[in-house]
Amino acid sequence: MLKAIQILGPSSSGFVSLSYRLKRKPQANCDLYFLSRKPIKASNLSSSRSKTPSFAFRVRKGRAFIAPQMSHIHSEANPYGASSSSSPSSSTSALVQSTGSIRKINFCQSCGGQTKHEIPDGEEKTRAICTSCGKITYENPKMVVGCLIEHENKILLCKRKIHPSFGLWTLPAGYMEIGESAAEGAIRETWEEANAEVEVLSPFAHLDIPLIGQTYIIFLAKFKRPHFSPGPESSECQLFALNDIPFDSLAFSSMLVTLQLYIEDTKVGRPMFHYGIINKRPGTSPSEIHAYTLDHHLKS
Amino acid sequence: MLKAIQILGPSSSGFVSLSYRLKRKPQANCDLYFLSRKPIKASNLSSSRSKTPSFAFRVRKGRAFIAPQMSHIHSEANPYGASSSSSPSSSTSALVQSTGSIRKINFCQSCGGQTKHEIPDGEEKTRAICTSCGKITYENPKMVVGCLIEHENKILLCKRKIHPSFGLWTLPAGYMEIGESAAEGAIRETWEEANAEVEVLSPFAHLDIPLIGQTYIIFLAKFKRPHFSPGPESSECQLFALNDIPFDSLAFSSMLVTLQLYIEDTKVGRPMFHYGIINKRPGTSPSEIHAYTLDHHLKS
Repeated sequence: MLKAIQILGPSSSGFVSLSYRLKRKPQANCDLYFLSRKPIKASNLSSSRSKTPSFAFRVRKGRAFIAPQMSHIHSEANPYGASSSSSPSSSTSALVQSTGSIRKINFCQSCGGQTKHEIPDGEEKTRAICTSCGKITYENPKMVVGCLIEHENKILLCKRKIHPSFGLWTLPAGYMEIGESAAEGAIRETWEEANAEVEVLSPFAHLDIPLIGQTYIIFLAKFKRPHFSPGPESSECQLFALNDIPFDSLAFSSMLVTLQLYIEDTKVGRPMFHYGIINKRPGTSPSEIHAYTLDHHLKS
Repeated sequence: MLKAIQILGPSSSGFVSLSYRLKRKPQANCDLYFLSRKPIKASNLSSSRSKTPSFAFRVRKGRAFIAPQMSHIHSEANPYGASSSSSPSSSTSALVQSTGSIRKINFCQSCGGQTKHEIPDGEEKTRAICTSCGKITYENPKMVVGCLIEHENKILLCKRKIHPSFGLWTLPAGYMEIGESAAEGAIRETWEEANAEVEVLSPFAHLDIPLIGQTYIIFLAKFKRPHFSPGPESSECQLFALNDIPFDSLAFSSMLVTLQLYIEDTKVGRPMFHYGIINKRPGTSPSEIHAYTLDHHLKS
């Protein structure tokens, strides 16, 4: 699949208009993506039903996130691999898993039959199809849910005691489970990682990371009582003043973006709700958490 | 698992405070949930790490959604079962699958070994564990992404030409795919279901339906050009004035809630961002789309 982005430039309304074109390689296993920013002409944007459409957004003009000095090489390919994910704990294999795990689906979960990797009738993407019972296995992005807890003008962070990103700081967050809501999941994760009981106040951020098949849903929250201590996956939990947040020692791009957005919002008065897409800068490693762009940033 | 909700009652601040308690049945296969609203005493809310915590929200006082007359029995257990979901197309089995499909995981996707259903070391939930290679299979909620497109004070709806909810109206929406963002997915689904090219304007709603393991992410959008026609999964596409929306013939609770919220917002001036949890009223069938409560409604 070739994914090209057209940046038409800033408009007078404070928005930039970006057009997308997704080209699929027939029979491809959907596990390799190339992200480019070369312009594509409007005349190339097809509206024919028989072709993949061009997609367009109108988004607010992006604020440039100035990445603080990077002093660590971090991995965020599979931030929560060990918990509630179908991803293996290896960050590298997790990246492959997230974007193209179809190749790892060798057998049918229902009947144990071997799978073939083909485009099913009436569909456009290659899927794992059981050669015995015919069942198609679909893979969908996963939601990571967490809390941004402010207490006396400080933010609660947890230092990870597990891999990946061992020893680095994160907001309490983890994979949303079947049977719970996003808010319940965020509260549960905060309990599990920081022994903190919190109340969810409002939704704050929805950040997609298409490259690794993850969506981060972060809520603003407050302590029910101002108690916290490290849970089994944390070595420390600490409140940081906004000026003291350890941006050089954060575990994941998603947390960096969330904290940056929150600090920006506090400067202008009140928290907004933010939607955005975190894309890795071309040519950088998934482990470099500061090497991202926040695209299609929308506020409500 | 027993899921009990404590409603402490409305506060003077215009919020109601609700406490949750999740009790797990050890060794349970997590495929049966019971939702009750009986009060539980505050003294029963444990903060011990060894027990499942009590969870609490502060949420805005819910506006009562008056369900329009129900003239159809609809199924929403698996609204997008045939597309990009691991759920089977049967709505009943999909419900079971979504909330407790672990019992359907009989074999390991990697090595084909048989699975056992146990709580892994260091975890709290029963998972499918391969008896051959030891791999744990996790199941996570799925995101359904879609667009609410207003054009000349009318909303675009599509009449479904597929089951479930054949012949009923919905916003264009479908499962988010690996490798795309939520906004891209919403634009893609709108193209596929209504042949319409749209621009996403802002995030509008995040609605969790824990009972069926789905999260709806709906964006406000507008036509790039005012053209639409039925895609392969739609028999009709039509613009409806807000007063003419066919509330008696909608396909899913999520769409009913989204449209109700939008209409409410238009009355007060501008669209907000909405978070909420759609719970079925106890004792009602999953197929009754009007038999829901919108809980923990938060706005940004």
